[in-house]
Amino acid sequence: MHIVIINGPNLNLLGKREPTIYGSRSFEDYLEHLHTSFPEVEIEYYQSNVEGEIINKLHEVGFSANGIVLNAGGYSHTSVAIHDAIASIDTPVIEVHISNIYAREPYRHKSLLSDACQGVICGLGLPGYRLAIQSILESGELKIES
Amino acid sequence: MHIVIINGPNLNLLGKREPTIYGSRSFEDYLEHLHTSFPEVEIEYYQSNVEGEIINKLHEVGFSANGIVLNAGGYSHTSVAIHDAIASIDTPVIEVHISNIYAREPYRHKSLLSDACQGVICGLGLPGYRLAIQSILESGELKIES
Amino acid sequence: MHIVIINGPNLNLLGKREPTIYGSRSFEDYLEHLHTSFPEVEIEYYQSNVEGEIINKLHEVGFSANGIVLNAGGYSHTSVAIHDAIASIDTPVIEVHISNIYAREPYRHKSLLSDACQGVICGLGLPGYRLAIQSILESGELKIES
Amino acid sequence: MHIVIINGPNLNLLGKREPTIYGSRSFEDYLEHLHTSFPEVEIEYYQSNVEGEIINKLHEVGFSANGIVLNAGGYSHTSVAIHDAIASIDTPVIEVHISNIYAREPYRHKSLLSDACQGVICGLGLPGYRLAIQSILESGELKIES
Amino acid sequence: MHIVIINGPNLNLLGKREPTIYGSRSFEDYLEHLHTSFPEVEIEYYQSNVEGEIINKLHEVGFSANGIVLNAGGYSHTSVAIHDAIASIDTPVIEVHISNIYAREPYRHKSLLSDACQGVICGLGLPGYRLAIQSILESGELKIES
Amino acid sequence: MHIVIINGPNLNLLGKREPTIYGSRSFEDYLEHLHTSFPEVEIEYYQSNVEGEIINKLHEVGFSANGIVLNAGGYSHTSVAIHDAIASIDTPVIEVHISNIYAREPYRHKSLLSDACQGVICGLGLPGYRLAIQSILESGELKIES
Amino acid sequence: MHIVIINGPNLNLLGKREPTIYGSRSFEDYLEHLHTSFPEVEIEYYQSNVEGEIINKLHEVGFSANGIVLNAGGYSHTSVAIHDAIASIDTPVIEVHISNIYAREPYRHKSLLSDACQGVICGLGLPGYRLAIQSILESGELKIES
Amino acid sequence: MHIVIINGPNLNLLGKREPTIYGSRSFEDYLEHLHTSFPEVEIEYYQSNVEGEIINKLHEVGFSANGIVLNAGGYSHTSVAIHDAIASIDTPVIEVHISNIYAREPYRHKSLLSDACQGVICGLGLPGYRLAIQSILESGELKIES
Amino acid sequence: MHIVIINGPNLNLLGKREPTIYGSRSFEDYLEHLHTSFPEVEIEYYQSNVEGEIINKLHEVGFSANGIVLNAGGYSHTSVAIHDAIASIDTPVIEVHISNIYAREPYRHKSLLSDACQGVICGLGLPGYRLAIQSILESGELKIES
Amino acid sequence: MHIVIINGPNLNLLGKREPTIYGSRSFEDYLEHLHTSFPEVEIEYYQSNVEGEIINKLHEVGFSANGIVLNAGGYSHTSVAIHDAIASIDTPVIEVHISNIYAREPYRHKSLLSDACQGVICGLGLPGYRLAIQSILESGELKIES
Amino acid sequence: MHIVIINGPNLNLLGKREPTIYGSRSFEDYLEHLHTSFPEVEIEYYQSNVEGEIINKLHEVGFSANGIVLNAGGYSHTSVAIHDAIASIDTPVIEVHISNIYAREPYRHKSLLSDACQGVICGLGLPGYRLAIQSILESGELKIES
Amino acid sequence: MHIVIINGPNLNLLGKREPTIYGSRSFEDYLEHLHTSFPEVEIEYYQSNVEGEIINKLHEVGFSANGIVLNAGGYSHTSVAIHDAIASIDTPVIEVHISNIYAREPYRHKSLLSDACQGVICGLGLPGYRLAIQSILESGELKIES
Repeated sequence: MHIVIINGPNLNLLGKREPTIYGSRSFEDYLEHLHTSFPEVEIEYYQSNVEGEIINKLHEVGFSANGIVLNAGGYSHTSVAIHDAIASIDTPVIEVHISNIYAREPYRHKSLLSDACQGVICGLGLPGYRLAIQSILESGELKIES
Repeated sequence: MHIVIINGPNLNLLGKREPTIYGSRSFEDYLEHLHTSFPEVEIEYYQSNVEGEIINKLHEVGFSANGIVLNAGGYSHTSVAIHDAIASIDTPVIEVHISNIYAREPYRHKSLLSDACQGVICGLGLPGYRLAIQSILESGELKIES
Repeated sequence: MHIVIINGPNLNLLGKREPTIYGSRSFEDYLEHLHTSFPEVEIEYYQSNVEGEIINKLHEVGFSANGIVLNAGGYSHTSVAIHDAIASIDTPVIEVHISNIYAREPYRHKSLLSDACQGVICGLGLPGYRLAIQSILESGELKIES
Repeated sequence: MHIVIINGPNLNLLGKREPTIYGSRSFEDYLEHLHTSFPEVEIEYYQSNVEGEIINKLHEVGFSANGIVLNAGGYSHTSVAIHDAIASIDTPVIEVHISNIYAREPYRHKSLLSDACQGVICGLGLPGYRLAIQSILESGELKIES
Repeated sequence: MHIVIINGPNLNLLGKREPTIYGSRSFEDYLEHLHTSFPEVEIEYYQSNVEGEIINKLHEVGFSANGIVLNAGGYSHTSVAIHDAIASIDTPVIEVHISNIYAREPYRHKSLLSDACQGVICGLGLPGYRLAIQSILESGELKIES
Repeated sequence: MHIVIINGPNLNLLGKREPTIYGSRSFEDYLEHLHTSFPEVEIEYYQSNVEGEIINKLHEVGFSANGIVLNAGGYSHTSVAIHDAIASIDTPVIEVHISNIYAREPYRHKSLLSDACQGVICGLGLPGYRLAIQSILESGELKIES
Repeated sequence: MHIVIINGPNLNLLGKREPTIYGSRSFEDYLEHLHTSFPEVEIEYYQSNVEGEIINKLHEVGFSANGIVLNAGGYSHTSVAIHDAIASIDTPVIEVHISNIYAREPYRHKSLLSDACQGVICGLGLPGYRLAIQSILESGELKIES
Repeated sequence: MHIVIINGPNLNLLGKREPTIYGSRSFEDYLEHLHTSFPEVEIEYYQSNVEGEIINKLHEVGFSANGIVLNAGGYSHTSVAIHDAIASIDTPVIEVHISNIYAREPYRHKSLLSDACQGVICGLGLPGYRLAIQSILESGELKIES
Repeated sequence: MHIVIINGPNLNLLGKREPTIYGSRSFEDYLEHLHTSFPEVEIEYYQSNVEGEIINKLHEVGFSANGIVLNAGGYSHTSVAIHDAIASIDTPVIEVHISNIYAREPYRHKSLLSDACQGVICGLGLPGYRLAIQSILESGELKIES
Repeated sequence: MHIVIINGPNLNLLGKREPTIYGSRSFEDYLEHLHTSFPEVEIEYYQSNVEGEIINKLHEVGFSANGIVLNAGGYSHTSVAIHDAIASIDTPVIEVHISNIYAREPYRHKSLLSDACQGVICGLGLPGYRLAIQSILESGELKIES
Repeated sequence: MHIVIINGPNLNLLGKREPTIYGSRSFEDYLEHLHTSFPEVEIEYYQSNVEGEIINKLHEVGFSANGIVLNAGGYSHTSVAIHDAIASIDTPVIEVHISNIYAREPYRHKSLLSDACQGVICGLGLPGYRLAIQSILESGELKIES
Repeated sequence: MHIVIINGPNLNLLGKREPTIYGSRSFEDYLEHLHTSFPEVEIEYYQSNVEGEIINKLHEVGFSANGIVLNAGGYSHTSVAIHDAIASIDTPVIEVHISNIYAREPYRHKSLLSDACQGVICGLGLPGYRLAIQSILESGELKIES
């Protein structure tokens, strides 16, 4: 089982950036927690501030990984190119946002990526990543359920 | 631990209604599965097609329950009144949609409720309800994490 | 042959409400005329001012009746939930408006329901209901014709 | 009794054009059916692909005919000039569309003609023309009814 | 003299809901104050969270009461059906909002009801209800004045 | 107690201008009525057709008067500068409109001033001014009530 | 001196069409008056309901006539093609509207032709044609003046 | 016969301001030409850069003059207050623009004043004022004609 | 091999009309060049300024020709009827514009026809027609390639 | 060297008005600081709350002064007339805003004046005026530089 | 002769990505075909998923190459920066899209790049690249022709 | 004192690109001038055409430098990600544009970055960078002043 977490611009500052919105824990710390929670899963982590490098990563893992958890940060609201990358690959992608983007500035209400993703989890803090991984793991069950 | 699931209009037809979008399993069947998954939680289920009755239910449980999972169906896109009810109560609400509303008709892209909820889970099928419950259960942990 | 007429909010005031727009005849009077015109058809009549009760009625008859004639009044312009109910049931629905909604205030020009209905008859007064019933009755022929 | 049916652009291709939307029967065939259905009515039929010729025809018959059934095709959505012609004449006009224009592309949802017409029948296939003629014939009764 | 106050969704929570916006006094308490202020007036009070029940109440009292004071809460911004009910009845309606809706979220700036009401009082707190009653009482004088 | 009424453009024509909308009584006549109604209050009256002079007046009295009743006429819909003046002063301002601006042309539906005022009274004719003064007088009580 | 008046759709009905808006005098009558007023000018008159024929006429006279007075009726608001014809020819065109298009329905407020014309005269009734001719005649003087 | 020409902001710079758009002749020079052209008419000229003073002037002459020619310059596009002044007075107003406002920046395409005026003359240079006066003089004839 | 070039309004003026935009060569001259370039192809040329005649031509050749090259001029931006004609016929249509419509006025940026055509070539001058013919000729190859 | 600072509405309240946004120093105090900083420059200061007086001042100094620093306050967002005055004069104008207008309410994001000014300085507090003066002084150098 | 083809994001997946839209042939395969077709031309090929690298390439070749064929993929709809790069260089650019972008999602209908390019070829599949190269080669001829 | 100038896409072409808009001096030349003007300041210069690298640079220097002067070029109008980077760092950022973006194409009027910056200087040519540096240097004073 191979799951890739891709974080977009400014998420490298997590813990440092606007802690009232994003909390004070770095993603690296949280990642250890995820490895512990899912010992049987190979969780790969990638972060870039460059839109095209996120596309490159999606291409690289998008035909072999079992699932992708994507938080494209500010690019979520402006990138047709990342949207197209998600639509071009085979691996299902779940979009995650740490904060509730619908409760923030109007330009954050619309993610251009959502319609190409399998689903969206937003506003549930860092645990949103864990729920996304869990959703991918259970997607066999999911198909039966719904 | 008391968690209330509130389903809005047409969700009583689940399993019967547009199965290519919503699947062929009724919510009652799924509910049993949830009871089994969370034996320690009192899961109350309420469904109504009447906007005002959903508000009544939110008022009734919104000052005592530990969490509310709300799928307001078509009212999600038109109801300022349900939005205000969510904002008026104490219990945190997680918004769930079975299908990916961002991949459907434009008028489903905007939920008037999202900014008053703690977070949104959408497009992950019926298991979205389970993830929402899990998020409420772990919200103690959640606060520490993020 | 079972056909259900569902009238929405304020149509209970017909004959009493703004007679220059809606005429001075009550719907109950007109209904007798319809029973006389179509003696072979079981015409059921339902009126409610409550959006959710209209949905309930659509669910109740929407898997057995041969046709539904729906004038949802003011909810035509605001209700995604009724739209979804129409799309969820099996019975075809014909939307009727007594007045020409396209010649009135701009917010009445757009019915959210129309695209889920089989067709629309508007501006032809109370006889619009009779034409709708006739269209349902002839829909066998209709399929051959068009 | 003199009723004129005016069909606009591309309706001469009926039966030949996009049969999944418009059916496979030509309007000429259907017209014979109408003559049979209303033997007492002089039904005149006119078709043109030229906007201005439709206006000419409306002027020609619009002060003497008892009713006009107009399907202006694509001009419905763009022609202020036809709208003005309808408003300029004495004969009442009923707008007909074979398909449900509200369930098609957004630019077909708005007819510029509707507010100048007596009413609209749409989405009921070729029989919509027959219902329109019937509505004109009964309009004496109609005035009493509504 | 018979005046009816109709309160819409969530106003049953007054004193409990968002006290920084709506104050900490329940409407029932305030109502006693109103009874004392206007001993000669029969002040009837009705509250419902159901859109259609508000319409029912408007129909019930709208042909006999001397005035209606309506705070439709969240339905003010979404309900064509309540608008139509106000336009359908004989009794004049004054729209009241406790908070200044024009100083809140953009979707609260537009009330669909205002143009069917006689006037609007907003942002003056609970006393807005008293001013509305006073305006109705003095409307004889009002007609002379303006 | 010092209350200032400020009237904007064209209100000097009251009684002379469009009497079907604004009535046939001049404001000066009405003012005498106000003086009689509130003998204990110093009611100052100012009218100007010049936007900047209205701002000057707001500055002049806005740090000492107990309340301001403002009907800015046509400037209500276009003046950011008057809005800023209201926000810059200490004295609370109540916005009054004689006619129901929400039932008139669309460009009158939006007042740029409302969000800077304490509240709005509109559509209640000249007595709206009296209600506004009363609201200011009772605002001590008001604070206790709401 | 050769001036061409081109009238568009429905203007052949002048005197017959909506007399409260357009008056009860036919254009042919008025034309005689123009011939009398300007005996030294060759005034050619052309009317067509066909957009393309108006373009043909503009091409035919647009490289030799001294001026064109154009009332394109309903095509004024929808025709890029006529706009382009005006821009393609050498003869200056003055746009005339009998009624005040800015005081009518919103879709009549915008003429697509105006920016390609030399100027616009509207709302001054039939005499607007005479003023337009006079403006062309004086355009030598005009150049000196402005 | 008393006709008043009112010019708005920046028109005092005529001849000095952007001569490629407005020409190099001052309005005072042109005024003499007008006095010569209409010796029997008392032509009063007023110019102000202050919106409210234009309103004052309209009030002053608007109940006695025979006609007003108004070029409100930049206020044409922003002033509801001047619009209301025009609608409040008895004297008919003709709106004049020297340049073709429909061929300039988009924000100049819409005059808020036009619908309250009798008509509009634009793009015909300074002679537009003469045509406007002529139209007022002939308005007796005008009524007969159209 | 039978290919039809259809040119719309004002293209008959090519070489004469706005040469800085459209060049100074007439289409007839260019047509000879095309006949020389493709001696094996029967190239039919049709031009009309009448929208409906363009539709007639599309109907006439649209079920037998191998390809159509269409430059609908100003109708490209306004004609739903031509759009529907293209969608109704069998022959593939390539849209050509001589100038780069995306670098001109905003109302030229949107062609209503493009989505019904196979493709668009624009801004490449008269040679765009030759490229379009070439594309049709190679479309056998094209299918293999892409 | 003659430079004129023109301040618009409400800036006379500086130091008194909303000190969290505009600071607590009056402009007169700051002006002394400017005189000290630029002893060789004649700095003229003008403030008015009247739109038309600002235009008058621009006309008065706009053909002789070396530079104008303009903070038109609320008129920045609504005044086409001031825009036109800036475009009509010879002296270059630099627009200054004390606060960052792009970080405030949406209606403050758009200044109608900016495109007629040489440049804009905003959000840098009172020193923005000094930078503007400096920019004017160095504009000889500026021309060389850029 | 040096021509550069620049492909943007996701076009490296050609043949692999959504073959129903983009075909099943990789661009590398097609490139060989182009080299064969134009043996006399040096065709350079560059692909990147990074917006800024596309700009770098445009800068690198944009002052020496004879032509650029650019398919910027998803960046076509969002990149002002690439638009500016095209406008900044000397080499003419032809925009190519494999699919008909006007027949896809609304957000693909608008290319921000088109107005800075010489022309656009879209919807003609991979051969669109060949036509673009041919257009560049013939542009000497092109200048003569149009 | 450490100040960083960050230039975005296409600014490396300064002096070479559209000299009528941006001047003919390269930024490197100008930089020497800045070093001379502020000998006491360490001025670091960074330019990139890659959006993500600009973000990387902002992160790198944004927690230690004393000020950042940012001209993000075309990314100013499209990048939420750079906006978020500015909001995430500690160092204040001043936005600079060489040309007056409000006097250019509409899509350049809105900078997504401005509300996260301390202020904006635009339209003052290359000296705008110097004014920005000066503003940072004086910001101690600035705090006292405003």
